[in-house]
Amino acid sequence: MAVPKHFTGYGSKSASDWQNLGKIEFEPKPFEEYDVDIKVQFCGVCGSDLHTLSGGWGGTMYPSVVGHEIVGEAVRVGDKVKSVKVGDTVGVGPNAWSCGDCSSCQRGLEQYCPDLVETYNFKYKDGSRSWGGYSNFARINERFVFPVPAEIPPAEVAPLFCAGLTVFSPLKANKIGPGSRVGVVGIGGLGHYAVLFASAMGAAVTAISHSPRKKDDATKLGATSFVVTSEPGWEEAHTRSLDLILCTSFAKDMPLKEYLALLDVGGSLVYVGIPESDLPPLPPTLMVGTNSALRGSNTGSKDDVLEMLELVKAKSIRSWITVHPMSQCAEVVERQRNGEARFRFVLKMDGSLP
Amino acid sequence: MAVPKHFTGYGSKSASDWQNLGKIEFEPKPFEEYDVDIKVQFCGVCGSDLHTLSGGWGGTMYPSVVGHEIVGEAVRVGDKVKSVKVGDTVGVGPNAWSCGDCSSCQRGLEQYCPDLVETYNFKYKDGSRSWGGYSNFARINERFVFPVPAEIPPAEVAPLFCAGLTVFSPLKANKIGPGSRVGVVGIGGLGHYAVLFASAMGAAVTAISHSPRKKDDATKLGATSFVVTSEPGWEEAHTRSLDLILCTSFAKDMPLKEYLALLDVGGSLVYVGIPESDLPPLPPTLMVGTNSALRGSNTGSKDDVLEMLELVKAKSIRSWITVHPMSQCAEVVERQRNGEARFRFVLKMDGSLP
Repeated sequence: MAVPKHFTGYGSKSASDWQNLGKIEFEPKPFEEYDVDIKVQFCGVCGSDLHTLSGGWGGTMYPSVVGHEIVGEAVRVGDKVKSVKVGDTVGVGPNAWSCGDCSSCQRGLEQYCPDLVETYNFKYKDGSRSWGGYSNFARINERFVFPVPAEIPPAEVAPLFCAGLTVFSPLKANKIGPGSRVGVVGIGGLGHYAVLFASAMGAAVTAISHSPRKKDDATKLGATSFVVTSEPGWEEAHTRSLDLILCTSFAKDMPLKEYLALLDVGGSLVYVGIPESDLPPLPPTLMVGTNSALRGSNTGSKDDVLEMLELVKAKSIRSWITVHPMSQCAEVVERQRNGEARFRFVLKMDGSLP
Repeated sequence: MAVPKHFTGYGSKSASDWQNLGKIEFEPKPFEEYDVDIKVQFCGVCGSDLHTLSGGWGGTMYPSVVGHEIVGEAVRVGDKVKSVKVGDTVGVGPNAWSCGDCSSCQRGLEQYCPDLVETYNFKYKDGSRSWGGYSNFARINERFVFPVPAEIPPAEVAPLFCAGLTVFSPLKANKIGPGSRVGVVGIGGLGHYAVLFASAMGAAVTAISHSPRKKDDATKLGATSFVVTSEPGWEEAHTRSLDLILCTSFAKDMPLKEYLALLDVGGSLVYVGIPESDLPPLPPTLMVGTNSALRGSNTGSKDDVLEMLELVKAKSIRSWITVHPMSQCAEVVERQRNGEARFRFVLKMDGSLP
């Protein structure tokens, strides 16, 4: 396939008018010998997309085309690409390039490379920009291009590459298995995968949500306990009951110290949602009294992706998604902002882009 | 030896006049079949003593007799005591009782028992109070009474039971050994042990201090690198250079986020000092970007004590202490408050108490 010199996507032109997603033509990074051009078929809608489009995290380069849960067809591969061939169905997550040489890269933790280039809103060393998957094509180094298993519907694979990966990585790092007690804060895109995966790994899962609204869904996803944080004194009944908490919330006023109080001795709360302000202040005795920890975690590695896909296949895990035409992305983003995803919106390419 | 019904120590009678340490007669807990009465010979002066005497942490019960780095002679043992006999030189640290049945106690992590009774300023279940070692006698359950090796001068053993233990426990928990890169924030009572122990374990140790004043001492203790946090941009030269940081500072305004920036991917900052206010707020991206953690740690277990004493003997580690008469405890506490300890004051019993 002839790949155009310029790609076309949907994006925001400015912070003040960010919700008005319009067509944007952009120049991708120069095509290099390790690059793969992907004709986008599906792209999930991630919370990061909203923080970036709106400028809420700061640092957005406008015009901004986002999207980092991509599934599509490889239509062109560089001369040195070995792991992908034209015609393959492949995927891309939040990361697009890393140095390959630093200790993180060498340890297979390339998502922590200090020179990491994310899939959108970043600059490569040559000054060219990275652009997201709400667009007709994506150009990505093969090291960050993943296989899409034929056994899983491709629309369901797309959100695995960020939402799924971001919770799978800390579950794996914390060696979750039978006997583990895992709490999941926030039953949304990331949280629903956390419940699915932790259950599939054999853990007892407690879903932790602001309202009782998602209790039935959480139970269907595999949670055996449900905690409603709007009920007074909710944390007292569950003190020291969990080994690991995955916090997918990015609310500025989240009750972080009450979450931490749920950890048993030596436990960890891993947060993967990034609020648009500082974390709430913590009383110093809290973590001392239980030897507990607050840890951050950023997406996952390619090794994590491959293991996650094996788990999804082996346990026949189904993503809870709804699919919408790419041309309706503005409306879908607005619905995502209103918390209407159940639990992930996936955009499907239609005829609206060249 | 006939042990008196009431013990006598030096302590504070009120928060407003806390620095005026006077003689206080108090009633110890009732003697029970697992208890050991110890005639105090030495007691270290810990930062916790000051926070408690002054009421800075809140919750001080006055009159208050503190001290939890005790070495003395067992002078009376309960009928069921097996591990201690009259005449033994023994020690006591910050913890005096735990339930023995909870999951923490069963795992040998009794310092995290939810019903833990600390050596002073706590209440036992029968309502009796716990009292510290700035006194003629101490009464403690044998599970919290430690052997004092004959190979180590007893005055040097005393501060091991809190200052030493509190840093040994997280070094052990984090499996520090050759190849580890350990940072120690605050070169004081706890910090000097952290440098000594981590070096003895084979780690490369970076001492982190507010001023260059302690550089020579840190080097003698075993540090191979010294970072002065009052120099502008100090953290930039050391970004991602450490696997573990032990933070012994309890300063309200400590640069916690800059400390965290020193951690390499997957590293942990373990804080063992307890400020009298909340921890400084943290930017959410910081720990996400390096998968790093902030963890609390409380003293250590009896197993930790025994391992620490083995290390001290095997590596001939010497505590840096100065010894002062118990009757001068008020002056010594004031000097501790002024940061004059180099690196631990130890009170030696004199003839001033009955």
